[in-house]
Amino acid sequence: MTTPEAPHQDVPDSYALHPAVGDPLLSSMNFLNEVAGRHPDALSLAAGTPHEGFYDVEDIHRALRVYCDHLRTATGRTEEQVRRTLLQYGRTKGIIHELIARQLATDEGIHVDPEAILVTTGCQEALFLTLRALRRDDRDVLLAVNPAYIGVTGAARLLDLPVHPVAEGRDGVDLRDLADRVAKARADGLDPRALYVVPDYANPSGLRMPEAARRALLDLAVREDILILEDNPYGLFPLGGDADRVPTLKALDTHRRVVHLGSFSKTVFPGARIGYAVADQPAHEGPYLADALARAKSMVTVNTSPIAQAVVGGRLLEHGCSLVQATRREADVYRESLGRLLDGLAARFPASSGVRWNTPAGGFFVVVEVPFDVTDESLERSARDHRVLWTPLHHFYGSAVPLRCLRLSCSAVDPGDVDEALDRFAAFVAAARQANA
Amino acid sequence: MTTPEAPHQDVPDSYALHPAVGDPLLSSMNFLNEVAGRHPDALSLAAGTPHEGFYDVEDIHRALRVYCDHLRTATGRTEEQVRRTLLQYGRTKGIIHELIARQLATDEGIHVDPEAILVTTGCQEALFLTLRALRRDDRDVLLAVNPAYIGVTGAARLLDLPVHPVAEGRDGVDLRDLADRVAKARADGLDPRALYVVPDYANPSGLRMPEAARRALLDLAVREDILILEDNPYGLFPLGGDADRVPTLKALDTHRRVVHLGSFSKTVFPGARIGYAVADQPAHEGPYLADALARAKSMVTVNTSPIAQAVVGGRLLEHGCSLVQATRREADVYRESLGRLLDGLAARFPASSGVRWNTPAGGFFVVVEVPFDVTDESLERSARDHRVLWTPLHHFYGSAVPLRCLRLSCSAVDPGDVDEALDRFAAFVAAARQANA
Repeated sequence: MTTPEAPHQDVPDSYALHPAVGDPLLSSMNFLNEVAGRHPDALSLAAGTPHEGFYDVEDIHRALRVYCDHLRTATGRTEEQVRRTLLQYGRTKGIIHELIARQLATDEGIHVDPEAILVTTGCQEALFLTLRALRRDDRDVLLAVNPAYIGVTGAARLLDLPVHPVAEGRDGVDLRDLADRVAKARADGLDPRALYVVPDYANPSGLRMPEAARRALLDLAVREDILILEDNPYGLFPLGGDADRVPTLKALDTHRRVVHLGSFSKTVFPGARIGYAVADQPAHEGPYLADALARAKSMVTVNTSPIAQAVVGGRLLEHGCSLVQATRREADVYRESLGRLLDGLAARFPASSGVRWNTPAGGFFVVVEVPFDVTDESLERSARDHRVLWTPLHHFYGSAVPLRCLRLSCSAVDPGDVDEALDRFAAFVAAARQANA
Repeated sequence: MTTPEAPHQDVPDSYALHPAVGDPLLSSMNFLNEVAGRHPDALSLAAGTPHEGFYDVEDIHRALRVYCDHLRTATGRTEEQVRRTLLQYGRTKGIIHELIARQLATDEGIHVDPEAILVTTGCQEALFLTLRALRRDDRDVLLAVNPAYIGVTGAARLLDLPVHPVAEGRDGVDLRDLADRVAKARADGLDPRALYVVPDYANPSGLRMPEAARRALLDLAVREDILILEDNPYGLFPLGGDADRVPTLKALDTHRRVVHLGSFSKTVFPGARIGYAVADQPAHEGPYLADALARAKSMVTVNTSPIAQAVVGGRLLEHGCSLVQATRREADVYRESLGRLLDGLAARFPASSGVRWNTPAGGFFVVVEVPFDVTDESLERSARDHRVLWTPLHHFYGSAVPLRCLRLSCSAVDPGDVDEALDRFAAFVAAARQANA
């Protein structure tokens, strides 16, 4: 019988673990959450979590009922089949693939065989499975636009897959640097498998790739025989409103070079943990790459909870399979918050302040340059003395070396709190500058 | 824009994948499901899926409400906090860990710090994360009682972790063979990290380890400095009723040598996809091994759907955190079916028939020896000509070499259909024996 006491200090040899689980990078998220947890009264310009102002537990119940009705009426299932669909094991590739295909056609102009869609336990699993399938041996490497979402670097480390950074440039991917990195890797006997990129409002930089750059990137992918992993959590939140959207890489992909990674965490809710991969590439283990990924998935999570899928499926059905329709209120909130954030920065930091920032075309994130090193201790001080949270940028470089940059996020803060949060942030900057002088 | 047509036959080099996703083993499950799908009128002695006779979609709604009420009353959360708990991102280690700890204390006499429990997307993820954390480099190997659950061999292959087979013997693990395998691996410069075992009604063999063998195995684990991965999906279904249960390895584990892998798929329902690991080992990345596994999890699925966790949590709360209470009806059904299966085999196959089988003390599975080779084609013929499904045993050896053995399962068939299924099975055996003569 085990006893609920603290573990011993002595760790037997048999408990030694893969280096990735002790990697500071994998602790980054923990650290950032911990700081937030210790300062519950701080306003958060740190979290990339979605706005929860419209959340309601009854939405879960309603969405489940809508999805079950759909099974009965649109697909003619009996009560027994409905029960079995929700409560038993199910199809490895998922059960809402046809609804997702309709959503992609409606909102994105992506027309894809539903059989090429793999529904996953959050977008992170789609990314993890894709990296797992692509990494065959020590020669394989991943390219990723740098700075990058912590989840891609972390997943790659967990799979012993080196990540070669590619410069972001002004257009989201510096294509010359990309070509150079591919050539360099090959000259070193390595095999660059794919480029990971967030073309719409990258995390952390907020950059959006112009359409011409997207087309040039697709040409390069064909020419260099690499895949593109397009991660698209924020695409429905342009600052300029719906008319201001740029086609996704997948919508422009005539050569099946793009694996499109989708998330419902920002458009439905994170608690469902539902994402997907559109992987219509041919595969020996196929017919589609999605089938090969499904085979890997069967050994990681077996299948994605059909209850959670039903919640997302019901929400899609309630809005005619359009997430643009489903997220009108949220999109308005993000637009308002991002606008206030950008205006508020301009009002507080004149050119002479040495504080600079970029102007994203949408999404959640703004990168701010400050005239001092930004460390984890800076964040601690900001939280404790000024009650405002943000994210030091070095975390997105998979490095512990402090930079003079940080990320602000507008998604979790109420629009009405943005100005107060920025007042606190300005106080932090003033104090840090003084300490530095 | 992609078009919904079949993929090309030409697969570019850039689409080559990790060998595990093309591994026949990972296709085993697919193949078995496919045969079942092509013969919907066949009775299934193949599926290990739980009995669904008592399933009801309304159970989901009720369990969700029970869990939300618990959050409000027992933990004093506000409506906003309840909403956030279910719908936002959440704690990587899960939100129903305290309820699981209560269930383990109530049903299993396992007393463990809830902080040492990691809630996962099905038990498969708990297994996958544990193997991921333990495998550091090419020297590491896993030991597994052979024949083994396909999910452990598949997960290990996906992680490039070799599996060294250990003989099952009469007691579930042949301890002499285990010690020999450990010594042999070390002599070869390898590092045997852990033994995977299902002590209660193994899949496929149905064997149960006697208590003395469990204690001897735990001593050996300490002596040899290896971990034990105890997978326990069937432990609540003894043939002799509740008084007939044997303590789990974890309940006997005084030296924190056992990582206990739990599943709610057989006790609540598979559609929730909720499992867990009890990992109270000390870890440098800890305090507990569970914390290190959580760090890996954050890069695989981020966190387990709190909606799905709430469904399981509600079900636990409805039954005073006792799954023995919650599964009384199901346990009766399994007991009846397994009894009918064993009696029915005895009635149909006299000693002279050359057909032999073991007598499990519980669970879902019986291994049957027949006087002819059992191939995937045998299964096809059985399904087509005799309308009964079962599982060729070679799939559990990770091998394509046919054996003279197969697995029967009693979990998915209605008790009232067991005799009809066995009549069909006897007809298949007679035909196969004749074809072989």
